[in-house]
Amino acid sequence: MHSPLFTDFYQLTMMSGYLDAGKQNQNSVFELFFRKIPQQGGFCMLAGLEPALEYLENLRFADEEIAYLDGLKLFNSAFLDQLRGFRFTGKVWAVPEGTVVMPHQPLMRVEAPLPEAQLVESALLNFINFQTLIATKAARVVHAAGPEGSVLEFGLRRAQGPDGAMSASRAAFIGGCDATSNALAGMRYGIPVRGTQAHSWVMSFASELESFRAYAHRYPDSALLLVDTYDTLGSGVPNAIRVARELAEHGHQLAGIRLDSGDLAALSIGARRMLDEAGFPQVRIVASNDLDEFLVESLRAQGARIDTWGVGTQMVTSKQEPALGGVYKLVSIEEAQGWRPCMKLSSNPGKATSPGVKQVYRGQHGDSFVGDVIALASESAPTGHCPIHDPLYVTPAQTIQAERYQPLLEAVMENGKRTRPAPSLTSLRERGLSQLSRLPVGCLRLQNPHLYPNGLSDELFQLRQSLMSRDR
Amino acid sequence: MHSPLFTDFYQLTMMSGYLDAGKQNQNSVFELFFRKIPQQGGFCMLAGLEPALEYLENLRFADEEIAYLDGLKLFNSAFLDQLRGFRFTGKVWAVPEGTVVMPHQPLMRVEAPLPEAQLVESALLNFINFQTLIATKAARVVHAAGPEGSVLEFGLRRAQGPDGAMSASRAAFIGGCDATSNALAGMRYGIPVRGTQAHSWVMSFASELESFRAYAHRYPDSALLLVDTYDTLGSGVPNAIRVARELAEHGHQLAGIRLDSGDLAALSIGARRMLDEAGFPQVRIVASNDLDEFLVESLRAQGARIDTWGVGTQMVTSKQEPALGGVYKLVSIEEAQGWRPCMKLSSNPGKATSPGVKQVYRGQHGDSFVGDVIALASESAPTGHCPIHDPLYVTPAQTIQAERYQPLLEAVMENGKRTRPAPSLTSLRERGLSQLSRLPVGCLRLQNPHLYPNGLSDELFQLRQSLMSRDR
Repeated sequence: MHSPLFTDFYQLTMMSGYLDAGKQNQNSVFELFFRKIPQQGGFCMLAGLEPALEYLENLRFADEEIAYLDGLKLFNSAFLDQLRGFRFTGKVWAVPEGTVVMPHQPLMRVEAPLPEAQLVESALLNFINFQTLIATKAARVVHAAGPEGSVLEFGLRRAQGPDGAMSASRAAFIGGCDATSNALAGMRYGIPVRGTQAHSWVMSFASELESFRAYAHRYPDSALLLVDTYDTLGSGVPNAIRVARELAEHGHQLAGIRLDSGDLAALSIGARRMLDEAGFPQVRIVASNDLDEFLVESLRAQGARIDTWGVGTQMVTSKQEPALGGVYKLVSIEEAQGWRPCMKLSSNPGKATSPGVKQVYRGQHGDSFVGDVIALASESAPTGHCPIHDPLYVTPAQTIQAERYQPLLEAVMENGKRTRPAPSLTSLRERGLSQLSRLPVGCLRLQNPHLYPNGLSDELFQLRQSLMSRDR
Repeated sequence: MHSPLFTDFYQLTMMSGYLDAGKQNQNSVFELFFRKIPQQGGFCMLAGLEPALEYLENLRFADEEIAYLDGLKLFNSAFLDQLRGFRFTGKVWAVPEGTVVMPHQPLMRVEAPLPEAQLVESALLNFINFQTLIATKAARVVHAAGPEGSVLEFGLRRAQGPDGAMSASRAAFIGGCDATSNALAGMRYGIPVRGTQAHSWVMSFASELESFRAYAHRYPDSALLLVDTYDTLGSGVPNAIRVARELAEHGHQLAGIRLDSGDLAALSIGARRMLDEAGFPQVRIVASNDLDEFLVESLRAQGARIDTWGVGTQMVTSKQEPALGGVYKLVSIEEAQGWRPCMKLSSNPGKATSPGVKQVYRGQHGDSFVGDVIALASESAPTGHCPIHDPLYVTPAQTIQAERYQPLLEAVMENGKRTRPAPSLTSLRERGLSQLSRLPVGCLRLQNPHLYPNGLSDELFQLRQSLMSRDR
C-alpha cells in the first residue's frame, strides 16, 4: 500500500494543476485533526503514525503506475515526467502513537511543496483515522475489563478486509490488548498470539469428551476447551473437568475453558463453581460472543467470573461508530510576501477550521494531565494560568492551571526521512496504558464522560476570529 | 494477504491436533453463510469470491512463516514438516459474485481434508463478509439514487485500513457504483476513476475565482469546481458561472460543480436555477457530505437537483452496521461408515446450524425471483409447488410456486485449482444490477422491506429436527 496511487484521484489532478499554475514549489503546511470523539467518549488514543511515516519515506511512482495515468488521457507529459522523479521531501511533526489526544488538536503537521503535501492526504488520513479509531476502542474495552481482566483481540474474520484485520490487530495492541488471534499480525508485528478451539473441532469427533481428550493430549499445558457446543453446564464443563483430572494425573494442568454463547454471567458463575468444587481454581474462564466495552462492564457488574475477554467484531470495526472523521487541512501557505495563514469557512459552522501552524501544549500537575492548549507554533509555550477558548461554541474562556506545559508535536521527519527509529509496539502499548492512568479518571467513563479541558490560546483564537470576519 | 498465517491462531493449533489425532486426511465439508441481513434490509449481494479463490489457489507456507511458528515452541516437527508441502487441494462450490443472497444459504461450500478446510476459515470469512457487506450497502445507495443518478465511491480516507479501502472500492463497484476516487483501485481493478477538487486547492490561491480559473484552464472539458469554501450561492456558484462563460468563449464546457456542506436540497435547487438562468443547463451538480442511502432518498424526495452522489465513509464502512456476521461451519464429515452430517447446537437457539451438504434452488417465474429453497445437495431439484420451512422460527411451512428452480452453487474449484477464469468486474456489476431488477421490488425498500420467501426443504428440515432431538 505504498503506491502513490493509493490516493483520491483529485489529488493527482490537483498536482497536475499546481504544476500548470506554477505552484509546484510553493511551500505549504497541512494539519491532520479530528473534530469529534467517537461514541461520545472522553478521549482518543493516537495510532497509525509509524505506518504513515513508512509510507511517506517509500513513496515512488512505478513505471506501470505512470503508464496507467498516461492511459487516462488527462495528464500532459510535463506532469508525468515530474512524477518519475517524485519523492516526498517534506518535514513532518507528529504526536507519538499511544498518546491521548483530543478534538481539534493537530496530530500530524506536514510542511512540503503543495503537490507533495496534497498527494499524501488520503493515505495519511486512512492510516491515522482507522488505527486511532481502533486503539481508542481497544482502550475503552481494556479499561472496562479492569486491571485483572485480560483482553484478547480476535476480529480477523469480520474485519473490514485483510488489512482492516492487520491494522486493527496493531492498533488494538497499542490500545492495551494483551494478545491477538491473528497469526500474521503475530509474526509481522511481534504481538503475542492466542487461541482456543472451534466448534468444528468438537463436532469432528464422535463425542465432545473424545474431542477434549485429543486436544488436551496435544496441548497438555495450554489447552483451552470450548464448552458450549452441546450443553455448557450439562456436558461441556463436566467433560472439561474430567479431562482436567486426567491431565492432573499425568502432572499437567488444563489452561482454561471458553464460553461462547448463552448468559455469560450465569454460565461463568456456574462454571467457576463447578471447576472450584472439582479442585481446579486455576483453570481460567475465557468468554466471547459479540462483546464490547458496555457488555464487559455490565457482565462484571453482575459478578461474572470471566478472566479473559475475547473481543472481535465490535472492537476491530468499532461497530457502534466505525469511522473517525479525521481531516487534513491547509493551514498556511508561503507567498512572495511570507507565510499566509489559511482557514476554511463552511456552510456548516462546525466544519470551519483554525488557521495557522499550530502546536499543542499539555498542561500537567504532577503526573496528571489537567488540560490542553492549542496554540500557534510561533507563540511561546504557556506557563501557569492559561486561558483557553472553545473553537466552535461561543462560551466564556476557561482557564487551565498547570505546573508545566509539554508540547505534544515532535519533529519526526526531515527532508522526507525519519529522524528516529520506529519505537517498538510494546513500548507504544505501555505508553498508552500510562497515558490513560494520567488522564482525569472521569474521562474514561463510557457514558457521559468528563469533558477534558481543551481549547485555543488567546492568540490563535484572535487570529481565527479576525480571518473569519475578513473572509465573510 | 495470501499468507497462510492470515488466520486465527487456533486454526493452526487445531491443524496440529488433527495430525496427532490421525485426522489429517479425514474429509470434511464446511459451508459459509450469514444469519441476518444488515440494517434490516431485504437482500444481500454476494461479493469477495474471486479474492477468496485466488487466496486458496496460492496458499503456501514460506520458510520464515514456518520459522515463526517453530519459534512459538508449541508445534512439533512432524507438523512443521507437513506445512512445508502444504497446498489447498479441496473442491469448492460457490454462488457467483453479484448474486442476490439470503440468510442461511450456503454461499461457499468447501470439501477438503479437515486441516485444509479448517485453516482457510478465517480468511474466507474475512473476504466474503466484508465485500458482501459493502456490495450490499452500495446496491442500497445506488437504488436510492434512482435510474438517473450516478454514484461515485470516495471512501478511501476513512476506510478501515488500506485494504479496507481497496476491497470496498471493488465491492462498491459490484454493488453498482459508477466510479471510484481511489486511483489504485482504478489501476488494479479497472474501475473508472473520478475526482473533483479539494478545499485546499481553492484556499491555496489568493481568491476563489483565481483558483477556479486555474483549474478550468488545466481541465477545460472536465473541471468540477468545489463551490462551498467561502459562500456557496454568494460566491462559489457565481464564480463558477463566470468561469463557465470564459470556457464557453473558447469552445469549452464546464463539467460541473460540487456542493460539500450546508442544506444540499436547497443549495442544489438554488445552484441549478442560477446555472440554468446563466445558460448552463448541462453543468452537472455533484453533492457530497456524509451521504448514505437514507439521505439520498430523502434529498430526492425534497426535490434536490443532484446529478451525482459522492458517497464515502457511510458506504465503505457500512456505517450503520459495519460487519456482516457470516460464519463457516462444519456440516458433514467422512467416517469409516460414510459421511456423517453435523450440526452445532447452542445456548442461543439462533446460533444452531443446519446439518448436511446443501444446495440452494432459486424459484423463478419468467425473469422474476419468487423464492428460494435450501435443500440437501443429495435431493433432486424441486419442481412446481415446493414447501419451505423457516430454519429458526416455529411457523407453518410456506409454499413457493415457480416455473423453474435454478441451483445457485456452482463448482468453482477442483483439486485446489479454479475451474474457470475470473469474470470481469464489469460483468459482475452488470449481473448485480440485473439481479436487483429481478427481485420483488418490495425487497429493495430501505425500511420494512418485503420478506423474500426463503427456507429449508422438507427433507433438510426433517434431518435438522431429528439431529436436534438426538443431540439434545
